[in-house]
Amino acid sequence: MPTINGERLIKNLKTLRDFGSIGNGTGVVRPSFSPVDLQARHWLIERMSEAGLDASLDGVGNVIGRSRNAGKALLIGSHTDTQPTGGWLDGAMGVMYGLEVATALSEDPDTRHLPVDVASWIDEEGTYVGMLGSSSFCDTLPVGVVEGALSRSGVKLTDAMRDADVTDLPVARYDLDRYLGYMEAHIEQGPYLEAKQKRIGVVTSIIGMRDFDIEFSGQQNHAGTTPMSLRKDAGAALLDYCHELRSRFPELMGERTVFTIGQVQFFPGAPSIIPGKASMILQFRDPDEGRLDRMAVLAQQLAEELHRNGPVEVKFESRSNDSRAAHMDDGLQEYLAQAAERHAPGLWERMLSGAAHDAQILARRMPASMLFVPSIGGVSHDFSENTLEEDIILGCQVMASASAEILKTHNA
Amino acid sequence: MPTINGERLIKNLKTLRDFGSIGNGTGVVRPSFSPVDLQARHWLIERMSEAGLDASLDGVGNVIGRSRNAGKALLIGSHTDTQPTGGWLDGAMGVMYGLEVATALSEDPDTRHLPVDVASWIDEEGTYVGMLGSSSFCDTLPVGVVEGALSRSGVKLTDAMRDADVTDLPVARYDLDRYLGYMEAHIEQGPYLEAKQKRIGVVTSIIGMRDFDIEFSGQQNHAGTTPMSLRKDAGAALLDYCHELRSRFPELMGERTVFTIGQVQFFPGAPSIIPGKASMILQFRDPDEGRLDRMAVLAQQLAEELHRNGPVEVKFESRSNDSRAAHMDDGLQEYLAQAAERHAPGLWERMLSGAAHDAQILARRMPASMLFVPSIGGVSHDFSENTLEEDIILGCQVMASASAEILKTHNA
Repeated sequence: MPTINGERLIKNLKTLRDFGSIGNGTGVVRPSFSPVDLQARHWLIERMSEAGLDASLDGVGNVIGRSRNAGKALLIGSHTDTQPTGGWLDGAMGVMYGLEVATALSEDPDTRHLPVDVASWIDEEGTYVGMLGSSSFCDTLPVGVVEGALSRSGVKLTDAMRDADVTDLPVARYDLDRYLGYMEAHIEQGPYLEAKQKRIGVVTSIIGMRDFDIEFSGQQNHAGTTPMSLRKDAGAALLDYCHELRSRFPELMGERTVFTIGQVQFFPGAPSIIPGKASMILQFRDPDEGRLDRMAVLAQQLAEELHRNGPVEVKFESRSNDSRAAHMDDGLQEYLAQAAERHAPGLWERMLSGAAHDAQILARRMPASMLFVPSIGGVSHDFSENTLEEDIILGCQVMASASAEILKTHNA
Repeated sequence: MPTINGERLIKNLKTLRDFGSIGNGTGVVRPSFSPVDLQARHWLIERMSEAGLDASLDGVGNVIGRSRNAGKALLIGSHTDTQPTGGWLDGAMGVMYGLEVATALSEDPDTRHLPVDVASWIDEEGTYVGMLGSSSFCDTLPVGVVEGALSRSGVKLTDAMRDADVTDLPVARYDLDRYLGYMEAHIEQGPYLEAKQKRIGVVTSIIGMRDFDIEFSGQQNHAGTTPMSLRKDAGAALLDYCHELRSRFPELMGERTVFTIGQVQFFPGAPSIIPGKASMILQFRDPDEGRLDRMAVLAQQLAEELHRNGPVEVKFESRSNDSRAAHMDDGLQEYLAQAAERHAPGLWERMLSGAAHDAQILARRMPASMLFVPSIGGVSHDFSENTLEEDIILGCQVMASASAEILKTHNA
């Protein structure tokens, strides 16, 4: 059974961290297509080549390292881009796991013939298009998305791709003849494992998400001289809608459902002016696609009722940011569970992923699986994100053992 | 009985409009202490001097024109500064009425001995300190307010005053031996007179106002991985508070009460992040100070309950923007009512002022009164603010007749 080199794994993670590190801590700023992101990609290609992989950028910016070994391959990946204010592990850890697993298997006479491919999917964090790289690989990108995409600061994705010299490269696509399946490791980004004092999570499903912009249009007016009965207060309509929604949602929600009103804005937003416009973003997540659909129908119905009854107009629109819930492959889960029990007996759990991941895109094309390690304090998408080094190393060993078992079984 | 010169009144108003006019329409940008505001003040001093008044700037920037006639004087005023995007009549009309009434009385042999003073109070609109000029005149400014005041763009009021060359001038103060009372005309800024097809409003009270900042502090977190039961969602707490407030306020409200939630903000305001902070501004107005106090107590109690019950901290603070409700002097009201009935029989009404005015500051020191003319479409604080010329002229004639009667009676 291959043994990973924990010291090498941590050293690689820390070197990758230097691309965009904000100092000596855990914070990293490495959004996709930024100069440090591109430097990190070229560094990664060198590391993959050293590990014996055929590594290169593809036509959207993915780094893919292909094993030269024959047989059915396992694809291991995640992303090396970060949030605008991100941490050193989110995404990066999963890619470094892939590199370490491929290296460890190649160093063990028992497994050195087995093919492991490694990928760093570009723009999982959505600087331009969330999960751009994995969606391109799985051919699930709607027509025109790449051409129309802009960053928040107005940079065109196609310009960023041209500046990165990837435009003319071939686009990598999934190959069902080649792959047994996909495996991705990630920090949990939540408090569950830590609270349960577990060290490994085997993901059963990645929850799906629905995301809506809701806009209220009334009549801006003077807050002193306009009687209550004559107002068309867009802010008041938004508050009515939120109350109705928050009263009615629980009847549809399950144990794992979450919903969030993350943004509310009143316009013009002055103390003495009745808001003429108001807007909000509603998001909800659940492992059950049927439940997500029922919640979306209710949210839309309530908006339509409010619109019909007046005096404020209500517009309800999908933010086209939805992600479908994805079940993780039962067979691959079982390999991860057995490896977890072997290296961390009693210290692992099956669990849902509340966050979205490239694995849910890959799951549309091949068996996919995920492994979690604990996030200290449940924190992520923040400079202070961290995980104990011993947990980082343990997770990689679990993945290496599971990968070896999967590959040996299928290539026997 | 003195007769005003409507043509001269409109001409003066249009000349004043040119200081800060945004084009050929009704829009004016003339915030206090701006170059055009100062030019308009010097133009006004010239016009007052031509009308025989001793006119000058005072130590905060007020323009005050004093009659040289003996006897008890009537003080007529309003403001010539505008909102950042204001109209040509808001404030300006009341000052031009003062000038025209003083002129008309001086042209009539029957009234030319009677003293009328005219004032343009600086910064009613609060570019630095709302009602700065009238508060200074009435000596109601708290210590340190002038020294600490900044405009939105960060300019210090004391610097603006120095640049305007007013710092070393004497500050004008109310003089109870001199004044019979105060009179102010203003556009209604609401839809009431127009809806009732009336041309003159005699104001019975100016409603008071309370203004609060309410802040909610929870824990920012990932909207996918944080279960509902573990959240400290500042946005959800704000929505709970608003619902409770909006359910409970009606039991305290009277026919004329208005309340407005004009600003709501969630932080950081992202779709996938549970808001760690949220803030709102609550404002309510009523002619009854006791009712305003009861509403403030309820709003604060609800905030304290929510704070006590957790999991989010709630901070409830006055924005120090409150204005006290002010009753308009019954005697002066009666003179206005009689003049209105004479010049516009059946076409006038007694009414509340929903907006705040310098008159409510003056009312703390002397009998005060207000006269309204209709606002077309109820619009104000907007470039499109307007009033029919015939209504502007009628209102001024009503004020001139009332002024003559008051002065004759008290100086008989």
